[in-house]
Amino acid sequence: MFLLEKHRRLPAYVPGDHEEGDGFIRLNTNESPYPPSPGVAKAIAGEVGKLGYYNDPDCAALRSALAGLYGVKPEQVIATNGSDELLYFAFLAFADEAHPIALPDITYGYYDLFAAAQGIPMEKVPLKADFTIDYRDYLGIGKTIVFPNPNAPTGYAMPAGQVAQIAKSNPQNVVIVDEAYVDFGAQTCLPLIDECPNLLIVRTFSKSRSMAGARLGYGFACESLIAELETIRNAINLYSVNRMTQAAGIAAVQENDYYMANCEKIIATRDYTTRMLREQGFEVLDSLGNFVFAKPKAMSAKALASQLRERGILVRYFDKDRVRDYLRITIGAMQEMQALECAIEMIFGRA
Amino acid sequence: MFLLEKHRRLPAYVPGDHEEGDGFIRLNTNESPYPPSPGVAKAIAGEVGKLGYYNDPDCAALRSALAGLYGVKPEQVIATNGSDELLYFAFLAFADEAHPIALPDITYGYYDLFAAAQGIPMEKVPLKADFTIDYRDYLGIGKTIVFPNPNAPTGYAMPAGQVAQIAKSNPQNVVIVDEAYVDFGAQTCLPLIDECPNLLIVRTFSKSRSMAGARLGYGFACESLIAELETIRNAINLYSVNRMTQAAGIAAVQENDYYMANCEKIIATRDYTTRMLREQGFEVLDSLGNFVFAKPKAMSAKALASQLRERGILVRYFDKDRVRDYLRITIGAMQEMQALECAIEMIFGRA
Repeated sequence: MFLLEKHRRLPAYVPGDHEEGDGFIRLNTNESPYPPSPGVAKAIAGEVGKLGYYNDPDCAALRSALAGLYGVKPEQVIATNGSDELLYFAFLAFADEAHPIALPDITYGYYDLFAAAQGIPMEKVPLKADFTIDYRDYLGIGKTIVFPNPNAPTGYAMPAGQVAQIAKSNPQNVVIVDEAYVDFGAQTCLPLIDECPNLLIVRTFSKSRSMAGARLGYGFACESLIAELETIRNAINLYSVNRMTQAAGIAAVQENDYYMANCEKIIATRDYTTRMLREQGFEVLDSLGNFVFAKPKAMSAKALASQLRERGILVRYFDKDRVRDYLRITIGAMQEMQALECAIEMIFGRA
Repeated sequence: MFLLEKHRRLPAYVPGDHEEGDGFIRLNTNESPYPPSPGVAKAIAGEVGKLGYYNDPDCAALRSALAGLYGVKPEQVIATNGSDELLYFAFLAFADEAHPIALPDITYGYYDLFAAAQGIPMEKVPLKADFTIDYRDYLGIGKTIVFPNPNAPTGYAMPAGQVAQIAKSNPQNVVIVDEAYVDFGAQTCLPLIDECPNLLIVRTFSKSRSMAGARLGYGFACESLIAELETIRNAINLYSVNRMTQAAGIAAVQENDYYMANCEKIIATRDYTTRMLREQGFEVLDSLGNFVFAKPKAMSAKALASQLRERGILVRYFDKDRVRDYLRITIGAMQEMQALECAIEMIFGRA
């Protein structure tokens, strides 16, 4: 055993099942049911002959493309190997044993791991009984703060005005707003980066842009905060966004309308799924993500997840306090949700 | 300023110039002059339609392919987002403020940054006057040890028997042998992993396998050491090797003969280049890497690098103690080295 003592009890991240090529309907990892846009394949093919050469460590063209699309400066953008890498960098930059992090008790599972790996004390702020985040719990809390908006796995979003109040009441601390799911109907906090120098917006191409397997995250903040994150990136893995992923990201930005149209489809399918599940007797939270968080009444969530799996449908069950009565169900294509509906009817019919 | 005090003086990694598409001959970043093998393009194209789905976090197929090629078990292999990521994980796993690292004073520049980012004290062991590593300096040193073998930028390699003595004399510490350049003629330490449970071999697809821009590193060690590294990987970035890169890596392993033939060409070109530079009055170290480390006599290394750049040829100059009289020159294709020869003749003719 060579691993340092402090790392020996690190929690393990439990990813959703990655069944593939065997006909499973994957409603368990919040992936997009739609393929990447046509330009992505072309852009990737154009890089293959150049793979022998290092990728641009600055991701300059990609950052410019994102800056153009979102109306900010390239110096206000950072690109990373998935948003997980950006979150890790942010934890490393702004928190440590002596600088704790505040976050919701029910949220994205990787925050716990980043904190554990770095020995960062966590103040877990309980969600309200209705699973919403009360922004008042974070006012003047005096710690680095992180939460997804919309939150996962609940799907609830906080209005940007409340995020602004959190940021302004904690001027000495960075507020990390993980907007992984923002394209599915929530309000972005991007316009706040000029007035809130402590605000970091984290984004990903994994959800709304059909590129979970390409690993591309990005972030927005004021120039000086981005520069601080670049200091960390430079010290750890300057080349982490490979050539193909940079090119794919640029192409996806150029074809943004395609992805935004897909988001509209997913929103419509989410509305259908929410109604359908309620008709089947589920309690369903009003989600603004590409997933719903739903509590079956006819049987336990765990049993239902298991029975759906037998019928070839994967959904996400978290064996954790407060949420073990719920399933997180990704919004796939309409026909996938109809297959889910059918499977639920048959399972409940038998139950 | 939100960056923690301890990170504010982090050194910056200074990458080689990344000029592209403008006719520069790139002999400055130890890239391969040969494109990836034909199967790589096909393998990548096959992943594009699946980019919406997460990559396999375990890199199972890739690790199996590498295990098959090198005659080890898949559990003795780890795959990462470039070998930089593996090195970072290893530093994090085995060293910290209270557990220093020993390394050569002249070596790969990123080790310093990983150590600085993690507050790890470094014991820098000076190379001998002839730029070789004396293995006796590391016997019983009682610290985590890291060095490239062959070393960069010198190109000198240590025989595996000496590495074994280092590992066996430090049974409580991990010895990280960075074999980034091993395919160009040095002896691998891979056969030692069964008898040395503290030995970690780090490899990359960036040099001998023409994939610097795809970001793929891998490592070999006994199963328990790999499991310890996986604990760290799991806590930091489980999905860091994207789908396209995993597929490209598998294809490259299947077409290994192509890459080994390229290595033979590079070795022959290195011999040519070494002779040529010596004829031009350079002092040239006997390199086992895909680069040579050479000291011009007719003018300063810095001035020569600058004049070569004016003629469209990039070489690497390190403005550091002990090595600022030298240039590190990547071995490109034969015609590139002939262009270098020609440029040197003209520059020296004028000097």
